[in-house]
Amino acid sequence: MKNMTPTEYRHFLLDRPRTGKLATVRSDGRPHVVPVWFDMDGETIVFTTWHQTVKAANMRRDPRVCMCVDDDTPPFDFVQIEGTAELINDAEARAHWARQIAGRYMGSDLAETYGKRNSVEGELIVRVTPTHILAQKAIAD
Amino acid sequence: MKNMTPTEYRHFLLDRPRTGKLATVRSDGRPHVVPVWFDMDGETIVFTTWHQTVKAANMRRDPRVCMCVDDDTPPFDFVQIEGTAELINDAEARAHWARQIAGRYMGSDLAETYGKRNSVEGELIVRVTPTHILAQKAIAD
Repeated sequence: MKNMTPTEYRHFLLDRPRTGKLATVRSDGRPHVVPVWFDMDGETIVFTTWHQTVKAANMRRDPRVCMCVDDDTPPFDFVQIEGTAELINDAEARAHWARQIAGRYMGSDLAETYGKRNSVEGELIVRVTPTHILAQKAIAD
Repeated sequence: MKNMTPTEYRHFLLDRPRTGKLATVRSDGRPHVVPVWFDMDGETIVFTTWHQTVKAANMRRDPRVCMCVDDDTPPFDFVQIEGTAELINDAEARAHWARQIAGRYMGSDLAETYGKRNSVEGELIVRVTPTHILAQKAIAD
């Protein structure tokens, strides 16, 4: 097991459209984790969420989040990002990021279609500022 | 998007050795999520953990966990299991499950080697009894 360099960390997150598994905490203290499509804006993690999801409610109550991205084939790599989430309701940012993120995960041909679907009124942009990053490669070695 | 049938849910978790992303809550209320190698014993999720990890400390304090397993290629499938974790310190169970789980993720040739590595004194077996399951296929459709 080795730590990724900052360059390896960026490549790991961006070269392939892996999903992030976003963990938040419910009002009764139970953990919650769901996959999200994300992109990066510099060091900031960006994704969209419908305003009425469990994760949106959880982040509104407590903006501390933890996101895990892994490669689940030997020798197994993983990144864990702890950070603070900001929820943004802005039509322009929504249109930009929804299209950008959809392009990453569905391909450029479908970016328009899925970008529109994820940029309707009620979708929020979430920006996570990392506070702590753990990035390890070849865990099984 | 459709719900998986119970049979599809089992196949999704067991046919390929996907990692589970296990979410727990830290003492200060922050969420924590890491990948785990798991197997199933009937409906129970089983994995091992070193007794001094963050996740072990979190589960000892609060046994409520949430685990996410996803297929991050279109059309995107995911399973989310909420449950209650029990930590077990038992040499026989440890030897059995460490080998069994290592075989799933590293292949039968390496099951022995990795099984031994994960069944030393200090490793615990974690058994998660599901309390709520969300299993959805073709999320992007």
